[in-house]
Amino acid sequence: MSLKVGVIGTGMIGQDHIRRLTKVLSGVEVVAVSDIDEARAAEVAPAGAQVFASDKDLIRCDAVEAIVICSWGAAHEEQLLECLAVGKPVFREKPMVTSEAAALKVIEAEVTFDRRLVQVGFMRRFEADYRRLKAVIDGATLGAPLMYHSVHRNASVPEGLYTSEMPLNDTLVHDADIARWLLSDEITGVEVRLPRRSQQGGELRDPHFVLLHMASGALVDVEISVSITYDYDILGEVSCEAGIAALPHRPATVVTDGHGIRQAIPEDWRERFIEAYDQEFREWIAAAGEGTATGPSAWDGYAATLTADAALRAAASGGLERIKMVEKPALHGAPSALAAE
Amino acid sequence: MSLKVGVIGTGMIGQDHIRRLTKVLSGVEVVAVSDIDEARAAEVAPAGAQVFASDKDLIRCDAVEAIVICSWGAAHEEQLLECLAVGKPVFREKPMVTSEAAALKVIEAEVTFDRRLVQVGFMRRFEADYRRLKAVIDGATLGAPLMYHSVHRNASVPEGLYTSEMPLNDTLVHDADIARWLLSDEITGVEVRLPRRSQQGGELRDPHFVLLHMASGALVDVEISVSITYDYDILGEVSCEAGIAALPHRPATVVTDGHGIRQAIPEDWRERFIEAYDQEFREWIAAAGEGTATGPSAWDGYAATLTADAALRAAASGGLERIKMVEKPALHGAPSALAAE
Amino acid sequence: MSLKVGVIGTGMIGQDHIRRLTKVLSGVEVVAVSDIDEARAAEVAPAGAQVFASDKDLIRCDAVEAIVICSWGAAHEEQLLECLAVGKPVFREKPMVTSEAAALKVIEAEVTFDRRLVQVGFMRRFEADYRRLKAVIDGATLGAPLMYHSVHRNASVPEGLYTSEMPLNDTLVHDADIARWLLSDEITGVEVRLPRRSQQGGELRDPHFVLLHMASGALVDVEISVSITYDYDILGEVSCEAGIAALPHRPATVVTDGHGIRQAIPEDWRERFIEAYDQEFREWIAAAGEGTATGPSAWDGYAATLTADAALRAAASGGLERIKMVEKPALHGAPSALAAE
Amino acid sequence: MSLKVGVIGTGMIGQDHIRRLTKVLSGVEVVAVSDIDEARAAEVAPAGAQVFASDKDLIRCDAVEAIVICSWGAAHEEQLLECLAVGKPVFREKPMVTSEAAALKVIEAEVTFDRRLVQVGFMRRFEADYRRLKAVIDGATLGAPLMYHSVHRNASVPEGLYTSEMPLNDTLVHDADIARWLLSDEITGVEVRLPRRSQQGGELRDPHFVLLHMASGALVDVEISVSITYDYDILGEVSCEAGIAALPHRPATVVTDGHGIRQAIPEDWRERFIEAYDQEFREWIAAAGEGTATGPSAWDGYAATLTADAALRAAASGGLERIKMVEKPALHGAPSALAAE
Repeated sequence: MSLKVGVIGTGMIGQDHIRRLTKVLSGVEVVAVSDIDEARAAEVAPAGAQVFASDKDLIRCDAVEAIVICSWGAAHEEQLLECLAVGKPVFREKPMVTSEAAALKVIEAEVTFDRRLVQVGFMRRFEADYRRLKAVIDGATLGAPLMYHSVHRNASVPEGLYTSEMPLNDTLVHDADIARWLLSDEITGVEVRLPRRSQQGGELRDPHFVLLHMASGALVDVEISVSITYDYDILGEVSCEAGIAALPHRPATVVTDGHGIRQAIPEDWRERFIEAYDQEFREWIAAAGEGTATGPSAWDGYAATLTADAALRAAASGGLERIKMVEKPALHGAPSALAAE
Repeated sequence: MSLKVGVIGTGMIGQDHIRRLTKVLSGVEVVAVSDIDEARAAEVAPAGAQVFASDKDLIRCDAVEAIVICSWGAAHEEQLLECLAVGKPVFREKPMVTSEAAALKVIEAEVTFDRRLVQVGFMRRFEADYRRLKAVIDGATLGAPLMYHSVHRNASVPEGLYTSEMPLNDTLVHDADIARWLLSDEITGVEVRLPRRSQQGGELRDPHFVLLHMASGALVDVEISVSITYDYDILGEVSCEAGIAALPHRPATVVTDGHGIRQAIPEDWRERFIEAYDQEFREWIAAAGEGTATGPSAWDGYAATLTADAALRAAASGGLERIKMVEKPALHGAPSALAAE
Repeated sequence: MSLKVGVIGTGMIGQDHIRRLTKVLSGVEVVAVSDIDEARAAEVAPAGAQVFASDKDLIRCDAVEAIVICSWGAAHEEQLLECLAVGKPVFREKPMVTSEAAALKVIEAEVTFDRRLVQVGFMRRFEADYRRLKAVIDGATLGAPLMYHSVHRNASVPEGLYTSEMPLNDTLVHDADIARWLLSDEITGVEVRLPRRSQQGGELRDPHFVLLHMASGALVDVEISVSITYDYDILGEVSCEAGIAALPHRPATVVTDGHGIRQAIPEDWRERFIEAYDQEFREWIAAAGEGTATGPSAWDGYAATLTADAALRAAASGGLERIKMVEKPALHGAPSALAAE
Repeated sequence: MSLKVGVIGTGMIGQDHIRRLTKVLSGVEVVAVSDIDEARAAEVAPAGAQVFASDKDLIRCDAVEAIVICSWGAAHEEQLLECLAVGKPVFREKPMVTSEAAALKVIEAEVTFDRRLVQVGFMRRFEADYRRLKAVIDGATLGAPLMYHSVHRNASVPEGLYTSEMPLNDTLVHDADIARWLLSDEITGVEVRLPRRSQQGGELRDPHFVLLHMASGALVDVEISVSITYDYDILGEVSCEAGIAALPHRPATVVTDGHGIRQAIPEDWRERFIEAYDQEFREWIAAAGEGTATGPSAWDGYAATLTADAALRAAASGGLERIKMVEKPALHGAPSALAAE
């Protein structure tokens, strides 16, 4: 009765998902593993799981009912299209793909299959605080949302590995996706401002301040700091017509001592979002068990790609960079079919 | 590889645990169910599980590796002793038993078996906020704990079903157990004061104010209200020699509107402690899989019984009612063996 | 048009009040000063003020319209009675007097004069947070108050000067007075419990835990720590039938850094209550200008004396020490006249 | 010994200041009043004060040592210049003047006089929470300030009286001035974005989102809502290199009931800033008594005028509108003298 899953990519995040699927969650089994580094795949594969050298073989293996893709690099597009070709549900860690063209191919293939198979790993949508926040907004007791203030602070980022375009290419997508989801809206334009530079960031250009213009007219501002030194601090506040709704602090012991009355902040994204990752897979397993997907879709992966591209353009131009999306397929929530611009 | 569990008692809490063991948690399977009401047991049993008319048959069934007891009434003592007789791990919802004599029999049987098999359902010990609080106390950066202020507020209790001795007999045990655990201490005496009576409680004597005197000299005060009308409000604050540590508010959207800046309180114990129940069973499954138990022990069940008895006596006498425990068995954490008073 | 005030006692608190009356507040003038230490009085007297060697001469001086008494020791009773004899409004720092007999003499003299002239320095009643808290209680939207949890924590107390009976004799009176005022109630009995002793207190017996039984049946618990090491932490929470009302944290910058998200606590009572002292005198000046007094009365000073006495007895006896008050004079808010027990 | 003050303008704010100067504060006396509406001036003048029909006569009256200008309209420039001509300290409610040219004339006259005489009514600088926030920033334990997030929310504004340019012309100046002061910085450019329009604002264009570019490179974002319906909500958060410092909530009773755990928000600017107004005048009185001024200067009034002008241009253009200031006179804190651009 368990869902039989194959995992592609056994780096840090892949190993963490294998742990989650084997030790934490019920109703699921990891039956196959593949990686370019086949030795590593063999090493981290759970007992009894098949190890594949080829992604394609894993995807096409009859014992595999659903696929989790955690690989890096340019192979995603082919992997996703292969999953769609064989009609198997697939969970894909962000970024879904890295070009608009690739995103459109994935969407087209899914629309052709005519059932959602692709789920993209925007785990914030599964986090309890964000869900409660969205419930308040959707409840509409505060009126329409007009502005959203999103704050994304990292204590530090790995020197050398994290480059100056990553705040806009990799970090911003979380805030952008959650803004689209919270406000049930689309991004139509991006502006980037570069505040006074922090001396804590070393070679990095840090912080960034981003404005997202939404289709409804709502304005989203995002503060991104990746060298704030203290901890991992994620905030979000929605200003509506008749009130404000915001994320709470994370629960932490309230200590009163010589430093004042205080609560610790999560150290990093693992601590902050660990339950969200669990819940994300819990819901994916249920959906994949029924041959489909839930939560963030290929359409959301497409939106993320467009936003990151526009943000990088906006940082270069200093102006407002517009986003034009194709018509939204009915499969992804809109009435009309996929259309060229 | 899954732990094969039999569940005794299929009332509300029993059904909730069956749901938890079949839908939420991994590494476990419900293979047998029994209830005095055999028809109800048959109705709620998962597909493939055996239904027993006799608790004893369930406990002795070879397919059952570990037992969860959720039954009410006087049968617990025999059920627990039966589990100990066959050497199977058993999770017993609170109260473990309802008399000191019964508690001592269970302890004696477990000591004879010479391995922990009994786990009692004090789920608060598995809750993340309480665990962080204990970590702060144990970390000792604030010095020794001197006082603990525990607040237990229910919006309301079921009229007719919840009687006036239940605040001291059923509700207090949670605060008493968590106080013992947080402070690594034992209760040596109980006082009860009856504050001004609430008009919201109807026929009930509400609220109660309880003082627990601890072996270390620490003083615990417990405020119990069961008709506070608004929600389920659980607070805890430890005053140490050089600082204070307290439970945080539960995470809830921060709303600013005409009612001020505000956060909702959990509606009831289900909402407040749902993750704690999951975690409690997660850890029990791991321990039972190794043929033993973890967390709250038969000793803790014994302490709870003594505390409830002393509290009821204290309410009647108006004075300080002392608690005398037998010597703590090494099995339950102390150096010396079980001894009569 | 300014109120002409004479100040008796020019120690630390007397000097602070002279500063307040001359530099901070309007509508008032310090025209006379006296002290046993006449040299000190001369030194701290404002320009133009008369310096008296004799309290009586100051009180009877025609230029003096109202008196502020900040002296220590046994002279207060005579000073107060002298003020009442000449019909001049008098502000007396706590304690009003130090014996029940003296308190009753003051009350009797004031009742004979048939107008309130005595105001006692319980400054908490003038503090904005306490006033808002009382407004919520009095508003009765939360139902009747059933319990009040009062916390009084000092970082440390002056070694040698602060003795082990002072928590009950000097510190408790603030919590007791504010409890009577918040709940519009009287104290009928006092219990004292001695929790585990803090190693931070040195020779001092610290902390104390006190229960005040109120005439309405409401129960007040007071946690007193005078060696908590970190700062000056004053808390208060009223549990009503249908909700809770509590003092807020004091405003302080919300800092997020390596110590968490945090707010400083006031360092000491000066910082905590400085505005309350100003407001206390602002209202006294207005009342005294009309030949009378406002706020805490001789009756409240009497209640404080009885409470401190009962608390010291309760610490010694370990039991409940009852308080019996004389009938409350109409002048102090009750329908009937002063009567012996 | 009291400062003898003349008040020009006896509208709502003028009357409030007369009340403050006569009833609340010490060391000051209102000896003269003038207004275009002489009857109203006569009505609200304190006993004994002279009533003038002409501002000039009031300013030149020998009994008047310092002037408070609360008038509206175009007369301010002449009134300020007249005060400077006779060398009398003058407190001027914001806006100081309404054109850049007028501001420069005032600065030039003051520089010629070679002593500060002008104080502009930016009362936030005297508010305790803002002062503590500035102390944290200036303390530099958090590193350099990089971003400042300022929120300005009004429940509603008077229909008809408050027009669509007022958010940028009148409301923004408070956030702009406090940003300059908190960060010890100057504004070099302004951008305005118009988020989705609130239906609560009626005919008004509401809300506004403003970016202030600072000389240091710091970026300030300001959210202005004037129809938020619930209360008056003022927030401020400074993101520094190594931590965050923010204004606390205002103290308000913490109520727990069916609406959650909650604290009220100030109803309007009077409630929010009443102590700030008192403190502003307390410090002005002290400075004026020494023949000079303190706090916000003519330079700050000039900066406010430039910012409001640039904001209105930016709303029209959609682009970044630059601000060019003349060289800062030494009198106002810089080394070099007043110079043309």
